[in-house]
Amino acid sequence: MVIRTGDQYVSSISKRSKVEIYVLGKEVKDVTKHPFLKPSVMSFKATFDAAWDEDTKELGRAWSPYLEEEINRFNHIHRSPEDLAAKVKLLRKLSHKTGACFQRCVGWDSLNTLNIVTKIMANKGRTEPRDRFVEYLKYVQKNDLALAGAMTDVKGIRTLKPSQQPNKNAYLRVTEVTKDGIYVSGAKANITGVAATEEMVVLPTRAMGPEDKDYAVAFAIPTDTEGIKIVVGRQINDARRMEEGEIDGLPYFYNHEGLVIFDNVFVPMNRVFLAGEWEYTGTLVEIFAAYHRQGYGGCKAGLGDVIIGASADLARQIGVEKAPHVQDKLTEMIFLTETMYSAGIAASLNAVKICDNCWWVNPMHANVTKHLVARFPAQISQLAIDIAGGMVGTAPSEWDLKNPKLKEYIMRYLQGVEDFTAEDRLRMVRLIENVSMGVAFQIESIHGAGSPAAQRIMFSRLYDLDLAREISKKLAGRKADLKMTTKPEPWRETQSEQEAKEHDK
Amino acid sequence: MVIRTGDQYVSSISKRSKVEIYVLGKEVKDVTKHPFLKPSVMSFKATFDAAWDEDTKELGRAWSPYLEEEINRFNHIHRSPEDLAAKVKLLRKLSHKTGACFQRCVGWDSLNTLNIVTKIMANKGRTEPRDRFVEYLKYVQKNDLALAGAMTDVKGIRTLKPSQQPNKNAYLRVTEVTKDGIYVSGAKANITGVAATEEMVVLPTRAMGPEDKDYAVAFAIPTDTEGIKIVVGRQINDARRMEEGEIDGLPYFYNHEGLVIFDNVFVPMNRVFLAGEWEYTGTLVEIFAAYHRQGYGGCKAGLGDVIIGASADLARQIGVEKAPHVQDKLTEMIFLTETMYSAGIAASLNAVKICDNCWWVNPMHANVTKHLVARFPAQISQLAIDIAGGMVGTAPSEWDLKNPKLKEYIMRYLQGVEDFTAEDRLRMVRLIENVSMGVAFQIESIHGAGSPAAQRIMFSRLYDLDLAREISKKLAGRKADLKMTTKPEPWRETQSEQEAKEHDK
Amino acid sequence: MVIRTGDQYVSSISKRSKVEIYVLGKEVKDVTKHPFLKPSVMSFKATFDAAWDEDTKELGRAWSPYLEEEINRFNHIHRSPEDLAAKVKLLRKLSHKTGACFQRCVGWDSLNTLNIVTKIMANKGRTEPRDRFVEYLKYVQKNDLALAGAMTDVKGIRTLKPSQQPNKNAYLRVTEVTKDGIYVSGAKANITGVAATEEMVVLPTRAMGPEDKDYAVAFAIPTDTEGIKIVVGRQINDARRMEEGEIDGLPYFYNHEGLVIFDNVFVPMNRVFLAGEWEYTGTLVEIFAAYHRQGYGGCKAGLGDVIIGASADLARQIGVEKAPHVQDKLTEMIFLTETMYSAGIAASLNAVKICDNCWWVNPMHANVTKHLVARFPAQISQLAIDIAGGMVGTAPSEWDLKNPKLKEYIMRYLQGVEDFTAEDRLRMVRLIENVSMGVAFQIESIHGAGSPAAQRIMFSRLYDLDLAREISKKLAGRKADLKMTTKPEPWRETQSEQEAKEHDK
Amino acid sequence: MVIRTGDQYVSSISKRSKVEIYVLGKEVKDVTKHPFLKPSVMSFKATFDAAWDEDTKELGRAWSPYLEEEINRFNHIHRSPEDLAAKVKLLRKLSHKTGACFQRCVGWDSLNTLNIVTKIMANKGRTEPRDRFVEYLKYVQKNDLALAGAMTDVKGIRTLKPSQQPNKNAYLRVTEVTKDGIYVSGAKANITGVAATEEMVVLPTRAMGPEDKDYAVAFAIPTDTEGIKIVVGRQINDARRMEEGEIDGLPYFYNHEGLVIFDNVFVPMNRVFLAGEWEYTGTLVEIFAAYHRQGYGGCKAGLGDVIIGASADLARQIGVEKAPHVQDKLTEMIFLTETMYSAGIAASLNAVKICDNCWWVNPMHANVTKHLVARFPAQISQLAIDIAGGMVGTAPSEWDLKNPKLKEYIMRYLQGVEDFTAEDRLRMVRLIENVSMGVAFQIESIHGAGSPAAQRIMFSRLYDLDLAREISKKLAGRKADLKMTTKPEPWRETQSEQEAKEHDK
Repeated sequence: MVIRTGDQYVSSISKRSKVEIYVLGKEVKDVTKHPFLKPSVMSFKATFDAAWDEDTKELGRAWSPYLEEEINRFNHIHRSPEDLAAKVKLLRKLSHKTGACFQRCVGWDSLNTLNIVTKIMANKGRTEPRDRFVEYLKYVQKNDLALAGAMTDVKGIRTLKPSQQPNKNAYLRVTEVTKDGIYVSGAKANITGVAATEEMVVLPTRAMGPEDKDYAVAFAIPTDTEGIKIVVGRQINDARRMEEGEIDGLPYFYNHEGLVIFDNVFVPMNRVFLAGEWEYTGTLVEIFAAYHRQGYGGCKAGLGDVIIGASADLARQIGVEKAPHVQDKLTEMIFLTETMYSAGIAASLNAVKICDNCWWVNPMHANVTKHLVARFPAQISQLAIDIAGGMVGTAPSEWDLKNPKLKEYIMRYLQGVEDFTAEDRLRMVRLIENVSMGVAFQIESIHGAGSPAAQRIMFSRLYDLDLAREISKKLAGRKADLKMTTKPEPWRETQSEQEAKEHDK
Repeated sequence: MVIRTGDQYVSSISKRSKVEIYVLGKEVKDVTKHPFLKPSVMSFKATFDAAWDEDTKELGRAWSPYLEEEINRFNHIHRSPEDLAAKVKLLRKLSHKTGACFQRCVGWDSLNTLNIVTKIMANKGRTEPRDRFVEYLKYVQKNDLALAGAMTDVKGIRTLKPSQQPNKNAYLRVTEVTKDGIYVSGAKANITGVAATEEMVVLPTRAMGPEDKDYAVAFAIPTDTEGIKIVVGRQINDARRMEEGEIDGLPYFYNHEGLVIFDNVFVPMNRVFLAGEWEYTGTLVEIFAAYHRQGYGGCKAGLGDVIIGASADLARQIGVEKAPHVQDKLTEMIFLTETMYSAGIAASLNAVKICDNCWWVNPMHANVTKHLVARFPAQISQLAIDIAGGMVGTAPSEWDLKNPKLKEYIMRYLQGVEDFTAEDRLRMVRLIENVSMGVAFQIESIHGAGSPAAQRIMFSRLYDLDLAREISKKLAGRKADLKMTTKPEPWRETQSEQEAKEHDK
Repeated sequence: MVIRTGDQYVSSISKRSKVEIYVLGKEVKDVTKHPFLKPSVMSFKATFDAAWDEDTKELGRAWSPYLEEEINRFNHIHRSPEDLAAKVKLLRKLSHKTGACFQRCVGWDSLNTLNIVTKIMANKGRTEPRDRFVEYLKYVQKNDLALAGAMTDVKGIRTLKPSQQPNKNAYLRVTEVTKDGIYVSGAKANITGVAATEEMVVLPTRAMGPEDKDYAVAFAIPTDTEGIKIVVGRQINDARRMEEGEIDGLPYFYNHEGLVIFDNVFVPMNRVFLAGEWEYTGTLVEIFAAYHRQGYGGCKAGLGDVIIGASADLARQIGVEKAPHVQDKLTEMIFLTETMYSAGIAASLNAVKICDNCWWVNPMHANVTKHLVARFPAQISQLAIDIAGGMVGTAPSEWDLKNPKLKEYIMRYLQGVEDFTAEDRLRMVRLIENVSMGVAFQIESIHGAGSPAAQRIMFSRLYDLDLAREISKKLAGRKADLKMTTKPEPWRETQSEQEAKEHDK
Repeated sequence: MVIRTGDQYVSSISKRSKVEIYVLGKEVKDVTKHPFLKPSVMSFKATFDAAWDEDTKELGRAWSPYLEEEINRFNHIHRSPEDLAAKVKLLRKLSHKTGACFQRCVGWDSLNTLNIVTKIMANKGRTEPRDRFVEYLKYVQKNDLALAGAMTDVKGIRTLKPSQQPNKNAYLRVTEVTKDGIYVSGAKANITGVAATEEMVVLPTRAMGPEDKDYAVAFAIPTDTEGIKIVVGRQINDARRMEEGEIDGLPYFYNHEGLVIFDNVFVPMNRVFLAGEWEYTGTLVEIFAAYHRQGYGGCKAGLGDVIIGASADLARQIGVEKAPHVQDKLTEMIFLTETMYSAGIAASLNAVKICDNCWWVNPMHANVTKHLVARFPAQISQLAIDIAGGMVGTAPSEWDLKNPKLKEYIMRYLQGVEDFTAEDRLRMVRLIENVSMGVAFQIESIHGAGSPAAQRIMFSRLYDLDLAREISKKLAGRKADLKMTTKPEPWRETQSEQEAKEHDK
């Protein structure tokens, strides 16, 4: 059986020997026991448990033609629109279980991206990367590994290409190629969940031209490889976790990102999928981005559900659940949440068959999904705070509640209707605070899978503006050419240098 | 062959002998030749031509198991999610061809609604309505008829039920039942395209209780039946059509709504589908509303395309197409348009199999679609006016352009870049004005298929708020019951009086 | 007495002998009797009546130090912040009286602008324009003239300066200078109310450089001067006025814009205020724009009041005035309306003393006002349509109501609660339609006094971004220079060519 | 000299002997030295320094007719519209100095409220409260005291009045009256800055009826009175301050709120301003709310400036400051910020003279101000995060930067353009995170001075909807009564029980 339980995953992560991880300036050996990172491990664990839990088992598994066996869906190559929809549905449910980002999507999307890109390369005659990838995929599926996807470079000066940067390592690059493998140096930033993974799939972060070929590099590598250093990032309210309480810091589930430093790291050749083939970078980025944008229609809708439920509960606690303005705000939150989800479902079920048995999301719907996600969560949070009351910013700590000199006062004065205790209320206030203002809902929603400006570039690329113009000309009684169109296929097998340059603008 | 050409339709409409239609207070005998209504006929005609035009032929036809023949899709009963998606795609394309509402969806949605409701009735033992409906459906498909759907009553005082109204005819009602048929009196308002149809399918407009049973009536009837009077409504810029020009009033395609008065009209029994069975009215309304809300994801996105194209053309005419703020506004318009479409596609492909070979749209996605449509068109129009310039409200008329004393001045002063003439510009300015401020985009988008408040009621009914609350309680470390749910199936075969009352709130 | 009554104004306008005005391609001799233009004349007339009506008399008059007499405020030079606030308050009230744009502000703002600019010129030693202006001002005040302000050029290709245009007359220009005066050719577009005025004040529309000096021209001229041709523009629903009814076309008050063609028009030298002094054009445009942007806080708030009142009345007519969602929408409309007004009041009372006894509005608040006006009216209209119901796009015409065969049906079926008749309802539906979708509220709100992009340029010019950056650096614990600022005074007496170029960007 | 320096204030606060304050469950004796509260003390201190700093000295002082001396403006009774505008300007500048809420406004607004209410009481013959208040005011001004305003009760079940609550202490109440004073029990919640004050001014939080008279209580009391317990609330990122670093937790300036428990506290009679006079509670609340809503136009605009500056700095650091989409976002932030400020200025300069030498803000503009503040900060934050990049949620901690094994990597990889170091960047990222997601900008903006629903109630109360309806009727050609109005004066000296009840709805 290749499907691991959550406990098996935790035990495996706990045993990584050489991994080099820093939290608040100090090295951490076992992330599964450290108060800062344990909640992240628990969220990751939920993706394993999902394949066993009664309510998610069906969604959480898929049949792999590579192994001819059932696997955890998080390492599955999508073989139908229904597979893509199952992803979105599963992510929504996992948000319900964690109230956090469970961090396993980037790795999953990376696998699906490499599957397509290495096929394209093979079709063009470059077959080794394909062979290496299929081997790697089987290895991942067979061992049900926890993967990070490491894409975003630190980027230095945003307006310069990798090869133009004064800091030569502003993008991860190949510094040496031997017959056994490659050496890479540089750093990847904002890497979701990385400290809780067994392997990283590393991808280039942008379309490149020939002068950038040293930076056109994709590979897979164990997280505890020598030369890799992970600096875990700060987040809203992170320091509360160090208090080791049970309410204020939401100790059960959370997520993290890390800065991953590659200091002359060796990658064996059988793990290298791209090393110099700059002409595939644009396609790779576009394919990855759309996969990842689609997924947000599930997980962020799921966080929306958590916040809606918490808001409704707090409204009930103070007796205003039926007030028309509260009802109206809850309805608005539902509408915003279901809109994100609708777009994610459209991106899945209206998918693109991009090669034999492999389906890509609909790129227009996927970009719509992410752009909605970049806008609506802040509105949902604002409504949640409105309903929840000023207490979200002023409630006493759990340590006050636990102080015998204060407990009775707090229990008396912070209770609303009698069915609930003040502790019930404090717990829910903290949930709203931590989820609605958290990195997963407020920041990842904006920047994850590409910033809003990136989706806007895609809108103008994917939309057939020339055709729209001709349609309007015809309706205005002018001469029109209704066959005019400048739109290429929604994805392209390779790209010219010209296109790479355009992408940079 | 049962698929008519557009010309066959026009010729048939032209020959209706007894139809009683009023426009601006005067009776009109042949709507196909009257300047006020001809553009509406042309839009309706486009739905027939779509089944023959090369670019829409495939979408425009469907195979009917009732006739075992190909028919025009506008009279088709949806048999799969793909059928539902084909509807949305077809509607988007027809908006491109007409720049207007083509008015044939309400009839189509009425057929699909009655198909489901009469099946439910048959399952409960009430089989005659089903038999009558199937006969009627075959007749419609075989003759490729142009149908109106007549649902909205005039409603009198909104807070009162039909039986409580001081004006007993505030809702259409059965005044007499004989063994041959029924007599009805009252009026239906806002009936789209009615003056250009051959038949009307009449449905109740709200959930009713037992005391309203005289008002629980559904039937089909030829538009030119004695006792029916149609008063065509006014619309923005309608009077321009009476000038019979070729630019300012968009004479080619438009749409209309009518007030339909039933003055003691006889309906033969084989055309009666509901007469007193109040307990099915709630289900009927809910099923119809969701079908119609889904469709707006297609037609309103198509109007969005027309406005985007026109805006881009005008920007090009004055040399600002590449200005960043113009690009950004066009991108925003694309995003808003594609969001409406995405939701419509989700409502289609994530459909509900509601009976053998009949599929209902996903009600949550369908309500999301319509609610987006109630918000975004006004934003799209605002952006279009912003790009197009003040000229949308100040440009000279075509009669000025045609005045030899003025023509040269206008051609000189209203030209922008040399590739376009001032006439090109005026034509496009008029298109933007008439489409972006028109009834189809500004008013139908808000009120068609139910006002925004109606969708909001559906959001709170369809969303499982109890489950969301339990999810949040669990995450907050409180006792939770994750199986708790109060949500019924998304549709119910019948409803109790209690539910009917709740719906009224 | 120098304050005219409305009737005196109408009588004077009616007698203009040589004026050349075209409406729908035909020349119109007496605008006061023509159904298309009479409502515009009535709106203009309201600005005269305001100086006599009990409720506006105090606001409608001001004391002129030039005449040492009371004058109509619409020709007054603002002498205090309270004067500026009185403008905003007066405009709000005049919107209540007309439901339209009353068209006299542009001329008023032009006078105040020239007052400042000619003072600046005089301070620099160029004194003739000042002397001419003061004489002209006295003449205008003494005769209580109805002025248009003519600023917007037709502009040809937007990205080119006047001197770069292929069409040399894309901006109004001086073609010849004699010792008696100047000859001008070209056209001004979107000129509000022009057909109902006695004089035009003509101003340049943009900042210019030395190469554009032929286009740097400002003067005053009677509307009926030889060589001037006015082509009145089309507007939403304009053709309804030609039906000469009393309901559907709002025959009482409306507004218009015109394209004004100058075909080698002679301007006597004592009416010339700028002819070649390109270096004052930037200042002139900036001063005018801010005055005009401030005013919109009054008139558009007043139209908001009209629409709020009409929406509340229609809600009452159908019995839903107390429904929470209707109350909430009305409240939102109030908030949006009062926000526009608040900004206008701030722009007035937080004014800038720019010279002896002359006050300019606060430019930042004035730009805020206009930018709000470019956004909120479309939202107000959308809410109004939501409350008013689909009837706004489908109600029968007044001609149907007047048809004896239909009247009884319409009266019966379109009545809501008994206190109102169906005619009451139709009248209000038409008011909502015509005001909320009209040019004054939907298009002028966006483009009048400069398009939204123009305000955005001003925001970045007026805001001290360098200082904000230093403030943030200090708070972040970095080295900061809190005296750093790059902001010039909010207005500048003259501008260098460099600045003119920057303005063009 | 009655104007204290900041240091004098800190020294005084440090010496409070009996004060009972809890932070994270532990009692804190000297708040000026505790890492959690010291930043709050520093913000409060800034209000004292403002009266001495060169750039704020003029705004920071005012002349008191009570002392016939200059005092710190924060204890001043507003004597003119210019005084009110000075408040808004001063608050904007103090936000620049602190990047936080400086917590002294509630006390200030409480003094101004009591000044008016006790005058009204005196006019009705109840003169003692007035005499006591004037004595207290002089004492406060003479000693330049730091005051809290304590208004919000814990409220129990929101839909019940104080006297109806199952928990009798859900609102603060008088439990005993003696000839020397009163005894009070209960709690006040969300009390801004309270742990850093010398005195509290306690006010009722809602309009009350006769049955609630025990709850109609207003008084002043030293913060260190026996029986008062202060439980300091949690806030986003509060635990970081306990790390005692210099970057991540913004150690210099912050703010806090506290739950204030009154356990049978004695208030001497000369400090009691209201004890049972329920009929003044509605007026008191309305007057206070408007004062406090006005102020937000200053302080929140000032926080907007901080965030705009930080965003611009970060954009410059990564080389994208000139990108059109970044420019556009900065411009939008400026517009939003200046809109809030404009409304605050209007509320000040368009003030209401409510008694001799005392001015109230314009209540409509003040409510507009606060309602804008309840909406725009979340939008500003979203734009800031968009510009700043994902790093806001993922950047390493200052402890990583200080770890010699990591420092070099971080300095290399997180640097953008060469003019800035990675530390510069981290510092600014933390400022954006802490200010834009902080309680002052995200939560206080929504709930401070009343939740959004409270402003909406005021909009419908202050707006003359009846008049608007009549205006629209007249324009629609129906009979209208333009003198109809139901609006009372914007404030009322007393209120009937009826009104109190209405307020509760």
